[in-house]
Amino acid sequence: MLTIHGVPLSVHTRKAIVTAILKKVDYRFEVVIPVIPGNPPANWSTLSPTGLIPVLQDGDFTLADSTAICLYLDRKQPAPPIFPEDIRDYGRVLWFDAYAGGTIFRHVVHPLFVQTIVGPNIRNVPTDRAVIDDVLTNVQPKILGYLESQIAGKYLVGDTMTLADIAIVSNFIVYQYLGFEIDASRYPKLAGYLREIAATAVFQRALADERPFVDQMGLKRGFLSAA
Amino acid sequence: MLTIHGVPLSVHTRKAIVTAILKKVDYRFEVVIPVIPGNPPANWSTLSPTGLIPVLQDGDFTLADSTAICLYLDRKQPAPPIFPEDIRDYGRVLWFDAYAGGTIFRHVVHPLFVQTIVGPNIRNVPTDRAVIDDVLTNVQPKILGYLESQIAGKYLVGDTMTLADIAIVSNFIVYQYLGFEIDASRYPKLAGYLREIAATAVFQRALADERPFVDQMGLKRGFLSAA
Ligand SMILES: N[C@@H](CCC(=O)N[C@@H](CS)C(=O)NCC(=O)O)C(=O)O
Ligand SMILES: N[C@@H](CCC(=O)N[C@@H](CS)C(=O)NCC(=O)O)C(=O)O
Repeated sequence: MLTIHGVPLSVHTRKAIVTAILKKVDYRFEVVIPVIPGNPPANWSTLSPTGLIPVLQDGDFTLADSTAICLYLDRKQPAPPIFPEDIRDYGRVLWFDAYAGGTIFRHVVHPLFVQTIVGPNIRNVPTDRAVIDDVLTNVQPKILGYLESQIAGKYLVGDTMTLADIAIVSNFIVYQYLGFEIDASRYPKLAGYLREIAATAVFQRALADERPFVDQMGLKRGFLSAA
Repeated sequence: MLTIHGVPLSVHTRKAIVTAILKKVDYRFEVVIPVIPGNPPANWSTLSPTGLIPVLQDGDFTLADSTAICLYLDRKQPAPPIFPEDIRDYGRVLWFDAYAGGTIFRHVVHPLFVQTIVGPNIRNVPTDRAVIDDVLTNVQPKILGYLESQIAGKYLVGDTMTLADIAIVSNFIVYQYLGFEIDASRYPKLAGYLREIAATAVFQRALADERPFVDQMGLKRGFLSAA
């Protein structure tokens, strides 16, 4: 059986978990919380050369990046695929996955997570409201506007769930756990899209498994019952 | 014909170019230098939603991330492949590509590039020697040591050139253009590996095309003749 190391509520760990659930690949979960000093196991630097989560373990083989893990799972268990057949759609899915990690996570979700959780709850560093305001006022509008312009149907690319949806929505789940909301009057397509993907059976199963962690960390879950 | 937008000497643009050369895919080049204000064309924000290079254009289809571009090219022109057949090797190639962009570029090559070129030559901000020292002393050793531990043959994964080699070596080309050197007594395998990959016909062709840009920017090319 596969092992996924990480925290179920982390953006990138959720990518691996949702992909495994979608493909009905059996896995067990091993909780590792790198932001808590002393939490990771003794062999962590071997499992994860960057120290980041998630890490996939398959026998004696390990893989420590969410995109690599999702594509590995897609080869191991091809059905249902997380990429469309069409070559341009395939390219676009990879693009959205890169955008999710390199832009949405890096410039929006990660700084908000650090300011609202890691700083005040773990590192004893008070929230810097100016950082949050900068993200919300200066960084976020361009990103949300771009996504709003890209949504044309239930799924971001093609007509089934792909890695694009998994990666993008995974970011906005954490965004909403932190108490931030997408303004549905300004970004109606994006707000509807996020609600619909979060309501799919695969995401519902992943989100249910996250509940104990969400409650323990005092995160917000209200947006989910609205779905 | 395909168009690649970017600067031939940029780390991520080189990934797209080397992949195109390896696969003998015809392309034309369009120079875009995002760090120079006013340089990008009027439709740049449509071509590149992040503003970053490279962007691939294939008819009316565009793709703005180097990994997405390389995988798209791999589907468009499957031979020679940039991934090994074996599923674990496939995963490892994706891992090294992610490590190249998220760790080597982000924490080593990008800060060194900003301090030695972008700051002093473009933004009129003097080099902050403390940043360079921090990268060389505190950040780099763990990364170089990890790579040294991973090299077992001519190529990083399997026995042909893959995206792993293209992405990792592309970073160290820029590193050396900036005048930094890999200490061959401390990292003998890494130093030899970089030299051998840079000496392959595909890299030689890409590096020759970069020469005018390298000269214009006053970068170092000496390390190449030693190959
Ligand atoms: N590129 C990596 C990014 C992984 C990443 O940033 N993980 C975060 C959690 S979502 C993490 O490990 N943070 C802990 C830390 O920064 O120490 C991937 O896609 O797996
Ligand atoms: N994840 C992107 C990263 C691209 C990237 O960082 N490009 C750099 C050049 S290597 C860039 O455009 N820098 C210009 C800037 O920061 O304005 C990719 O793989 O294409």
